[in-house]
Amino acid sequence: MKVWKTSLVVVLLGIWFSSALGADPRHEIHFPNLPGTQTLVCDFHMHTVFSDGQVWPTTRVDEAWRQGLDAISISDHIEYQPHRDDIPTKHNRPYDLALGHAHVHNLLLIKGTEITRDTPPGHFNAIFLKNVDPLDTPEFLDVIEEANKQGAFVFWNHQGWKGEEAGRWLPVHTTMFENKWLHGMEVCNGSTYYPSAHKWCLEKNLTMLGNSDIHVPDRREKSTSENHRTLTLVFVKEQTIDGVKEALQEGRTAVWFDDQIIGRQEILEPLFAASVRIEPPHVRTDRRIWFQIHNTCDADIHLERTGKLGPASLELPARTTILVKIDVKDPKSPLELPYRATNFLIAPEKGLPVVLKVPGVE
Amino acid sequence: MKVWKTSLVVVLLGIWFSSALGADPRHEIHFPNLPGTQTLVCDFHMHTVFSDGQVWPTTRVDEAWRQGLDAISISDHIEYQPHRDDIPTKHNRPYDLALGHAHVHNLLLIKGTEITRDTPPGHFNAIFLKNVDPLDTPEFLDVIEEANKQGAFVFWNHQGWKGEEAGRWLPVHTTMFENKWLHGMEVCNGSTYYPSAHKWCLEKNLTMLGNSDIHVPDRREKSTSENHRTLTLVFVKEQTIDGVKEALQEGRTAVWFDDQIIGRQEILEPLFAASVRIEPPHVRTDRRIWFQIHNTCDADIHLERTGKLGPASLELPARTTILVKIDVKDPKSPLELPYRATNFLIAPEKGLPVVLKVPGVE
Amino acid sequence: MKVWKTSLVVVLLGIWFSSALGADPRHEIHFPNLPGTQTLVCDFHMHTVFSDGQVWPTTRVDEAWRQGLDAISISDHIEYQPHRDDIPTKHNRPYDLALGHAHVHNLLLIKGTEITRDTPPGHFNAIFLKNVDPLDTPEFLDVIEEANKQGAFVFWNHQGWKGEEAGRWLPVHTTMFENKWLHGMEVCNGSTYYPSAHKWCLEKNLTMLGNSDIHVPDRREKSTSENHRTLTLVFVKEQTIDGVKEALQEGRTAVWFDDQIIGRQEILEPLFAASVRIEPPHVRTDRRIWFQIHNTCDADIHLERTGKLGPASLELPARTTILVKIDVKDPKSPLELPYRATNFLIAPEKGLPVVLKVPGVE
Amino acid sequence: MKVWKTSLVVVLLGIWFSSALGADPRHEIHFPNLPGTQTLVCDFHMHTVFSDGQVWPTTRVDEAWRQGLDAISISDHIEYQPHRDDIPTKHNRPYDLALGHAHVHNLLLIKGTEITRDTPPGHFNAIFLKNVDPLDTPEFLDVIEEANKQGAFVFWNHQGWKGEEAGRWLPVHTTMFENKWLHGMEVCNGSTYYPSAHKWCLEKNLTMLGNSDIHVPDRREKSTSENHRTLTLVFVKEQTIDGVKEALQEGRTAVWFDDQIIGRQEILEPLFAASVRIEPPHVRTDRRIWFQIHNTCDADIHLERTGKLGPASLELPARTTILVKIDVKDPKSPLELPYRATNFLIAPEKGLPVVLKVPGVE
Repeated sequence: MKVWKTSLVVVLLGIWFSSALGADPRHEIHFPNLPGTQTLVCDFHMHTVFSDGQVWPTTRVDEAWRQGLDAISISDHIEYQPHRDDIPTKHNRPYDLALGHAHVHNLLLIKGTEITRDTPPGHFNAIFLKNVDPLDTPEFLDVIEEANKQGAFVFWNHQGWKGEEAGRWLPVHTTMFENKWLHGMEVCNGSTYYPSAHKWCLEKNLTMLGNSDIHVPDRREKSTSENHRTLTLVFVKEQTIDGVKEALQEGRTAVWFDDQIIGRQEILEPLFAASVRIEPPHVRTDRRIWFQIHNTCDADIHLERTGKLGPASLELPARTTILVKIDVKDPKSPLELPYRATNFLIAPEKGLPVVLKVPGVE
Repeated sequence: MKVWKTSLVVVLLGIWFSSALGADPRHEIHFPNLPGTQTLVCDFHMHTVFSDGQVWPTTRVDEAWRQGLDAISISDHIEYQPHRDDIPTKHNRPYDLALGHAHVHNLLLIKGTEITRDTPPGHFNAIFLKNVDPLDTPEFLDVIEEANKQGAFVFWNHQGWKGEEAGRWLPVHTTMFENKWLHGMEVCNGSTYYPSAHKWCLEKNLTMLGNSDIHVPDRREKSTSENHRTLTLVFVKEQTIDGVKEALQEGRTAVWFDDQIIGRQEILEPLFAASVRIEPPHVRTDRRIWFQIHNTCDADIHLERTGKLGPASLELPARTTILVKIDVKDPKSPLELPYRATNFLIAPEKGLPVVLKVPGVE
Repeated sequence: MKVWKTSLVVVLLGIWFSSALGADPRHEIHFPNLPGTQTLVCDFHMHTVFSDGQVWPTTRVDEAWRQGLDAISISDHIEYQPHRDDIPTKHNRPYDLALGHAHVHNLLLIKGTEITRDTPPGHFNAIFLKNVDPLDTPEFLDVIEEANKQGAFVFWNHQGWKGEEAGRWLPVHTTMFENKWLHGMEVCNGSTYYPSAHKWCLEKNLTMLGNSDIHVPDRREKSTSENHRTLTLVFVKEQTIDGVKEALQEGRTAVWFDDQIIGRQEILEPLFAASVRIEPPHVRTDRRIWFQIHNTCDADIHLERTGKLGPASLELPARTTILVKIDVKDPKSPLELPYRATNFLIAPEKGLPVVLKVPGVE
Repeated sequence: MKVWKTSLVVVLLGIWFSSALGADPRHEIHFPNLPGTQTLVCDFHMHTVFSDGQVWPTTRVDEAWRQGLDAISISDHIEYQPHRDDIPTKHNRPYDLALGHAHVHNLLLIKGTEITRDTPPGHFNAIFLKNVDPLDTPEFLDVIEEANKQGAFVFWNHQGWKGEEAGRWLPVHTTMFENKWLHGMEVCNGSTYYPSAHKWCLEKNLTMLGNSDIHVPDRREKSTSENHRTLTLVFVKEQTIDGVKEALQEGRTAVWFDDQIIGRQEILEPLFAASVRIEPPHVRTDRRIWFQIHNTCDADIHLERTGKLGPASLELPARTTILVKIDVKDPKSPLELPYRATNFLIAPEKGLPVVLKVPGVE
């Protein structure tokens, strides 16, 4: 670089950096913490110009910041680099370029990569890596073993993306599973839900993940019930990279996909309980009560009655309050109303059973 | 009514009522409570078909419910009833029609009216009335006296709506003021701000109010910083009609108008303090710190630096987090950054002085 | 009215009227005209405070104006008037009150009413009435006959609203039909589609209608593909009330319901043809062409391939252009691509067959 | 690349390309054509990862397509390439990478660059280049001369971005101007308007331009009056790259900036005339007429009365119709109403004078 350029670079860099900083405000995502843990909103699968994505690595930090995420992993393909003629391969570079930007944005950046072979066996993300370079080796299982040597958390991406036949469970997956080299699966990737992945996570005790797999710029300003990335809620004991890893290893996750929350019953039960607040009835007549229900989280909740009392269905849009009227025999008694949260999936097509408890007069 | 109609009415009424109930979810408005009080969002000025408005009284309840209000007063004109040929005058009727609907929606409905004579002396709302009928009497001051006999809170509406000349302070206002018959003024009405009203509230210790004065249907789904009614925040000791009255009598209000919060300094100071939360810096280098500021309330906040340290201006959009970077000499010391909240008005064109306190390392 | 009130009324009325006028701009709805006719957007079913609606009659004009409608009919119930204690019955009054307002807003206002007996036989709208009063008579068929004497167009509303059993075709409907007293049916009312009504319209050559049946204020600012009232497109020879009547009598309508257009094949074919414009390919390689398709109307169009060539499905969002790429043997030849417009319904669950014609090189 | 990777690349590339194609529909921008010319919407200034931008070059095509643009120029910095460590300098590469993508999207892609020296003399774009490489030479005026040798159109970017002092007109600019090496100026760049640039364009007969200068991903889905890039309207005789060049050389442009249209009076007059359509009055009473005005373009229009008749101001939101009421002496006579379009700027702070012609009765 010539002298007359240097000073310019410094000046422009300063301007660019300061104007980029905080250009977008951050819109926090609202999901309650569960007892003993803190809820982090995470996306462990995304791409940049360093593989087949369209943005510079720091842009992934900007997007995550403004949309209210807490942790991300940039996971560029090892084997597929269509921009190689212009951007020579450096597997660790996207992480290195984004790290400082993530740091000042108070975002946890987890080093990761996507192992991108034919399907089958399919694509796999390895995250919490120390060095991506040793994973660039011909034999598939060598790559998986190397990732595990580095202590990575390995998950199977978009299992059925080429159809159920191409995404079937094969001996190679059994090998991975039995060696404890496979730790989770994407139950949802982008706009697609994979019921087989969901089922296997339950059967084999694999961790459930939901990720965006974004290649294009993510244009969303914020994360709302109507328009958000596919994301993983991670219930951590501490808000650190190690904390995220521990929670993933222990399976303490839920997937926020479209208008659904997907996870194990023991996770979704306290999540529902902490999200929904029922007020004591504010009007009680001889035979009727009126009360309010607050949905304090960013996901809509759809309820269907499974008992005999209460409206046949209840819609609780994200972060709103609804009014409920019930005809009762004794307006002073407490009520327990059995419902099913049809969009809180504890198994494929199986909604979470819940009980709405309406306080009585004390 | 003939027999064949009766059963129909009952059936249809039942359907209509149940489907109307909770048709719209409620979007709560977020302003923090102040020490010892609870913050209610109120609108004390609106009209229905019973004077020159376009909607049935219950519709005002539906609108207030879904937009997150806590208390309203329907204040139809006593003297101006352009629908009289179709709706014979019954001054208390809008209140009576809306009361049950307000009750089941957990909304405080305050009986009120608008005393609508020429300008000057201008229009006045009397709220917390027991009976509107005795106020339908020819002499203006008789009306005001009767309202006060009933224990009403009386305020001057849209003072300058016909210009400053027509809205000037006259002997009749002095009479009202000296008899303690005038208790507040609308500093803002609909889309207009009245600086003279603002000034007089400060000088004469009158309560500041901001109301919508809606005549048309209010089409807003929810109350946001970009699009909300002109409203009065009332800081009550208890969430009852008497609680609202006590707070109005004591002047514990602020006005939410467009992107401004208008009120006395002793109110806006704790309101700002409870709305803005500064995190300890998450990155400290030798000469620079980065920290986050949360604006937890539904109003945008605009800050201008009045000291030497910190960005020249800071924009804190409603319910977002921003990132701030400051070059400092000692990154471990706490900082006190003097700013002015330019849209928190403590007097005409005078923003609230604030100090942003950034924690140091302990 | 006393003297001191009169001047006030005049002044206030002037202000109110001028400020109300044009307060909202009008957003035109875009559907193409068909050969020899003009397309009007109409809603023939809505209520005001004069029956069980929530707004003053002029409000229905304001809503229709800003949302781009061309003709409306206010159709308050004859038999059901829950506000009767406050608004004594005057069946023609909503029309009279709205007429001048409609006139200055260049909107066609059609005098109508809803004949509201038990279901069965169900509710019926009679529009193009001269005087509603004679329809307030006990016997149902007397009402229908009187409406027809006045030259009304009579249609059956929300046929299945109480279930298919209550909405079945009965001898009384046959009587109406054989006397030519029944001319159309609501295929869609509000948010509900009635397949039986759709089927009967086709079988019996009744005119298809779609109406809002709004009781609450309509909060929509404009009519978009995502959010619009249920409406009837009427293909008129002249933009007058008589022109609308002639078109309804001749069955020249289509229903815009949610994201569907419902109508007879001979109507939907030219409507589709006039809405969709295919550009000549702008790139032709040896084996591939790229071309643009414009959807110029306000309804989304969903296409499914029924032939062998072209993408399996094509989504044409309202008023956008899409890019299509096709692998072909001869890039210079014109193409005819058979598709089905799945949301242009020519019968229940039956989409319109269309052919996309891509120009060749001349 | 090893064998086992090759097949994968081919497969993935196919999928990626086909899914990317047409993923977003295009939203056309509506400005009328002027007599003898066609109106193209253009942006001649933007960046990619090849200098200091955040996106891959093809992304600029995707953004322009969906937002309804017709022509763009990618203008990466010659001298400032902060990503050089990862992306070795290839000045023509962004153009080469985007060209095919632009071609299939029917978008005119113009080869350009930003000459990025100190300010003063400031930054300059050269567009319609044949080869950027020869412009990478030390002496500033050599670069400008080389650009002109290639037939480039050269314009001064964001003239006052570092203040009026740094952006003043210097001898070097005179040299450029007198050699006919400088052809235009950005009157607006991004969110900033430069009144000096505006003035000089008028004084020196330089072409007015408005460009986005985007570095980040452009998140806008479409171009609306409330939210669009800063753009240049170019009035071309033919829709080709040569057509754009001819129009720029002849100064046939206007700038769409925020809610303003900026251009020469001889351009804005026909643009206004073609955008605004006044209907004959649909109601004429003895002393009053009502008529509609259509604003058919995508820019709001603000009018202030400069004569005696008509409303003091008229707001014509983009693509809406408004209703106007005027008290007149003779409702059958045609009217000519002098107004000023305050946001159609023909000079700094100077709105376009217009006359609204209301037809009389023939």
